[in-house]
Amino acid sequence: MKFDLIKTDEKSKARAGVIETAHGKIETPIFMPVGTVASVKGVHQRELEEDIKAQIILGNTYHLYLRPGLDVLEQAGGLHKFNGWERPILTDSGGYQVYSLSGTRKIVEEGVTFQSHIDGSRHLFTPEGVMDIQRTIGADIIMAFDECTPYPCEYSYAKNSMEMTHRWLKRCCDRFDETEGKYGYDQTLFPIVQGSTYKDLRKESAEKIASFEREGNAIGGLSVGEPAEEMYEMAEIVCDILPADKPRYLMGVGTPENIIENIALGVDMFDCVMPTRNARNGMVFTSEGIMNMKNKKWEKCFEPLDPNGTSFVDSFYSKAYVRHLFVSKERLAGQIASIHNLAFYLWLVKEARRHILEGDFTSWKDSIVPKLRNRL
Amino acid sequence: MKFDLIKTDEKSKARAGVIETAHGKIETPIFMPVGTVASVKGVHQRELEEDIKAQIILGNTYHLYLRPGLDVLEQAGGLHKFNGWERPILTDSGGYQVYSLSGTRKIVEEGVTFQSHIDGSRHLFTPEGVMDIQRTIGADIIMAFDECTPYPCEYSYAKNSMEMTHRWLKRCCDRFDETEGKYGYDQTLFPIVQGSTYKDLRKESAEKIASFEREGNAIGGLSVGEPAEEMYEMAEIVCDILPADKPRYLMGVGTPENIIENIALGVDMFDCVMPTRNARNGMVFTSEGIMNMKNKKWEKCFEPLDPNGTSFVDSFYSKAYVRHLFVSKERLAGQIASIHNLAFYLWLVKEARRHILEGDFTSWKDSIVPKLRNRL
Repeated sequence: MKFDLIKTDEKSKARAGVIETAHGKIETPIFMPVGTVASVKGVHQRELEEDIKAQIILGNTYHLYLRPGLDVLEQAGGLHKFNGWERPILTDSGGYQVYSLSGTRKIVEEGVTFQSHIDGSRHLFTPEGVMDIQRTIGADIIMAFDECTPYPCEYSYAKNSMEMTHRWLKRCCDRFDETEGKYGYDQTLFPIVQGSTYKDLRKESAEKIASFEREGNAIGGLSVGEPAEEMYEMAEIVCDILPADKPRYLMGVGTPENIIENIALGVDMFDCVMPTRNARNGMVFTSEGIMNMKNKKWEKCFEPLDPNGTSFVDSFYSKAYVRHLFVSKERLAGQIASIHNLAFYLWLVKEARRHILEGDFTSWKDSIVPKLRNRL
Repeated sequence: MKFDLIKTDEKSKARAGVIETAHGKIETPIFMPVGTVASVKGVHQRELEEDIKAQIILGNTYHLYLRPGLDVLEQAGGLHKFNGWERPILTDSGGYQVYSLSGTRKIVEEGVTFQSHIDGSRHLFTPEGVMDIQRTIGADIIMAFDECTPYPCEYSYAKNSMEMTHRWLKRCCDRFDETEGKYGYDQTLFPIVQGSTYKDLRKESAEKIASFEREGNAIGGLSVGEPAEEMYEMAEIVCDILPADKPRYLMGVGTPENIIENIALGVDMFDCVMPTRNARNGMVFTSEGIMNMKNKKWEKCFEPLDPNGTSFVDSFYSKAYVRHLFVSKERLAGQIASIHNLAFYLWLVKEARRHILEGDFTSWKDSIVPKLRNRL
């Protein structure tokens, strides 16, 4: 993997760059649609490519390990071949899902034992095992196995957990470095900064993570319920420590506003289920604000879904029609809103990048952030 | 509306023709995807047009009347404007849904009182009212208000019901002929033959319906649970009576085999929820037979979904991937299978038409029908 930092904004810490992977280039800052179980929910791969203009998507190790399973993925030739997505893929380490989805799970130094949310079967994830799994999935960017602490989190728990995450990282790196990609192309490993909402722990963790000198670095354990201001504070502390010549990935973030604010702090990569999950519930994000498509006010609004939108759904479908589909619980409702929201997120980061390159990012940010909060 | 009968097969009664409507031409025999509530479930309009190559879709009067309602549809400028489908639309009369979906309903000479399946509200459908509703929906082809008898059905009930359907037809025609389309284009009214599975009633009804000399005619009350042989017997009796120079529409039919067999009897138009409903349950129809995509046998079958298929999903997605999506209950599973099945149905009627025109329909039919039944 290669990262070119093209420009850093003068009035903020926002950056524009390009990541090169075996499956193509990614222009940063970037948003990565979440394709949990080898599919971005309700969205065809060609829509991701042609309409949403996604440059990289995310897969979930926990889900893919359980279904379709490593045997199928390996015989398919990896996830790219399995789902037909030929551009870059990033996989998380499965840690977050193990903690949030599985029933009884036990965290010890060796790793985590957990029960499948599908059939209750027992499994063990270790740092080494998770590297092997992600080698088999074949993602371009794979994540270290960490513990994502909840919010709020006792200081002593956060500290002990962070230290274990650091020890696990050593094991991840060792295993990763002594193995090779299975499908003839390179993969890269990103470590993850933890430390909950404690400044000293975040600082310590960021320094430790930076010392591993991997090709990119991630910030985990945020967007788990803490106030946005705390998230920004932690992201800033960490970004100021992580090396400038490597991409920084803030995991699981967030609202359009969260993304712009974190770009300003020096974050380059984001993922979140919000654009698709909220889409399925009728929430549509636009450059003028947020629409609840189930609202009666759209009943006879025959204007395009989003006159400023970049995807075909924005001009083809009217607000009234989309509202009707949501009220009638038609599947097409979620499909339309998912395409729209993802295209909007991709437009938003592309706009941020353009303004960074053109030198007016901060004034653009100041003008768009208040609009993003509007309730239309 | 205009119908050109281009060719009738010499060894069967199969016909190839062209229907011209205000929204474009329809090459017959044709299959019409069902867009119940102004949406073909899970399918984008551009997919219907570009990938499935649908020439006409169906809307359900009962559903559209309840949601989005006539007020919205009229202000939108009709259903075409509302859902963005610019090709022909046919609406059923709502009769079938009133009988099958609503709770307490009462059929009297005046019409049918029923309760909405959505909110229990009470409504009255009369022949005149249903004409007005379909004028407002703005379909190119609208259907007479009839009673669709269940199967099995007592002779006396079937006879009385048929006679009422004939009296209702007179009222439908009177109302239709004294009104005009609301959006500046012509609509046409098809009457419906009833008579359950009684030959004499079917004959009587077909003669009565033909005597109204409308621009096309439909056969209702079949595909409601009777054996296929009875369906074919009734369709043949009716087709032999209905005028040859007008299109014949067999409502609610059916499996790929049913469609080919009825084309051979002289039917020109079909609709059915089967390709989309069964798709959502994992059933995929192909020219080599039927696949249950949830079956374990596809787990590691990385071949294309359907090498003979005509839509993008057939070559882009593998059987193993589609199986994985069904097992994982991913929305994309139903979307892929719906596009495939509809494209297959449209391919099937197009092939039938080609073979009618080329003069080898019967031998093609004999070779393909046994394959359509295969369980792969």
